[in-house]
Amino acid sequence: MSVEAMVDERTADPVSPDALAAEVRRLRIQVDELARTGVGDQREDKVSLVCFSGEWDRLFAAFVVANGALAMGQEVHMFFTFWATAALRDGTATGTKKKGLMERMIGRMLPVGPDRAPLSRMNWGGLGKLFMAHRMKQCGVDRLSELVTQARDLGVHLHLCEMSADILGINCDELIGDDGIDACGVATFLTTALKGKVVLFI
Amino acid sequence: MSVEAMVDERTADPVSPDALAAEVRRLRIQVDELARTGVGDQREDKVSLVCFSGEWDRLFAAFVVANGALAMGQEVHMFFTFWATAALRDGTATGTKKKGLMERMIGRMLPVGPDRAPLSRMNWGGLGKLFMAHRMKQCGVDRLSELVTQARDLGVHLHLCEMSADILGINCDELIGDDGIDACGVATFLTTALKGKVVLFI
Amino acid sequence: MSVEAMVDERTADPVSPDALAAEVRRLRIQVDELARTGVGDQREDKVSLVCFSGEWDRLFAAFVVANGALAMGQEVHMFFTFWATAALRDGTATGTKKKGLMERMIGRMLPVGPDRAPLSRMNWGGLGKLFMAHRMKQCGVDRLSELVTQARDLGVHLHLCEMSADILGINCDELIGDDGIDACGVATFLTTALKGKVVLFI
Repeated sequence: MSVEAMVDERTADPVSPDALAAEVRRLRIQVDELARTGVGDQREDKVSLVCFSGEWDRLFAAFVVANGALAMGQEVHMFFTFWATAALRDGTATGTKKKGLMERMIGRMLPVGPDRAPLSRMNWGGLGKLFMAHRMKQCGVDRLSELVTQARDLGVHLHLCEMSADILGINCDELIGDDGIDACGVATFLTTALKGKVVLFI
Repeated sequence: MSVEAMVDERTADPVSPDALAAEVRRLRIQVDELARTGVGDQREDKVSLVCFSGEWDRLFAAFVVANGALAMGQEVHMFFTFWATAALRDGTATGTKKKGLMERMIGRMLPVGPDRAPLSRMNWGGLGKLFMAHRMKQCGVDRLSELVTQARDLGVHLHLCEMSADILGINCDELIGDDGIDACGVATFLTTALKGKVVLFI
Repeated sequence: MSVEAMVDERTADPVSPDALAAEVRRLRIQVDELARTGVGDQREDKVSLVCFSGEWDRLFAAFVVANGALAMGQEVHMFFTFWATAALRDGTATGTKKKGLMERMIGRMLPVGPDRAPLSRMNWGGLGKLFMAHRMKQCGVDRLSELVTQARDLGVHLHLCEMSADILGINCDELIGDDGIDACGVATFLTTALKGKVVLFI
């Protein structure tokens, strides 16, 4: 039914001035509420980045986007999962928890910290990586570990996937930063991602 | 022009009580409609995941997100394209359609089903994969095929990219599940993704 | 406080017919504005695709999504960064800017143009790629370079990441198309992505 038809249908009822005034007040409150909070689904200024591969170039892209989004007033959340969890390890930190054989083996095989992560292509046993790092220095581009420090200092939220950390035998006290990085599950990621504006799987 | 200026400008016109009452009725209907359906673009509770690489670890991440999103009340759609289409094959199913030489060759080269997919890194001819699978069992994490079964049972919608299936010579009757998986194109993906809240390319 | 309670509280004030008419006019303007522009955050019909890996199969997926989204009335923006920047190079174009040794070395190692990009899996030194290209021809699927031409002709916006182009020593006058592709930074990407509906990292 069209608005006009519905109005015509209801025009038959006479309205007292008081009833009309009350209805107008109700409309005012509702319209102000609509204008203030918006209706239905509202997106928040949140950017969620899933760091999965942990490869140096992909981490680099992730932190460029994270720091850029932060500078544009977004709340930025990075979720480190699977291979990328190793990139958050601090080479100088000595974890306190005793590890089993497999945990130590995996720990040895995975690169420690962001700067040691391999390239996703043309890594050539680290040669391509050296080449790329040299070229980036020539161009005056920040090192990856500097981008990570900037992100932490400026307030990017770093989250560690608890299940991945368990599987790879990585403990929270081995990670970069003194205050640690909170461990979370898929529900935390989804809660943030569903409310936000941009979600990337990197 | 500001709202105040526009109101002042129009204040000159006298309004009859009946006309005012009719206008208030129209406003009521419109405001109720705005409050009910929302205005402009509304996002729906939909999560769309493009599974492209078909690597074991990426599929694992995709199904963890899918099952998590479903548990949080989202409608979840997974679109299997390119290499990931092979991960939906059921090793025990015998396709009825006769295949050409190239189709059979590609079919032999691609892994059958999710548990046989390789790791995206450190696969080492399957050794890294075995290692990882053993470690996940130690941690009490479900196998990938169990996550797939859960997803199907709980109502995650699985879609197969028709073009990819054609190219790789995969037929719908070779896939997991009795009721088959619907084949679709890019338009189906975009229609779902554009309406939804989270879209990931995995 | 509920709407009813707030209305009751304010019902005490008497309202003159003129004041009531003025309030109704204000409501009309505000409601029309709400219905027209929507409230709060509005998503625009924009799709943003970050092309990162530059692998043939991933570029293919990106251009299929881009052309599909365009056909569905979306404004489509593709952002080429890192390895994918090489895919925009035109083999026949001769750049005018003199390059240093490292820039020339990187330039030689990266594939020129979309059709020469390697597969992300089973590339086997180009053999797997040939195999795939042959199979796609059998299925009547367009070549990647044809999809790129279609995208350009139909109005997909192509952007080049300035930092990546600098690092890899790629100049804008080496790229496909006569009118060039605009170089941009992460802020341009985020501005488009934050307003849009779908963002993929491919």
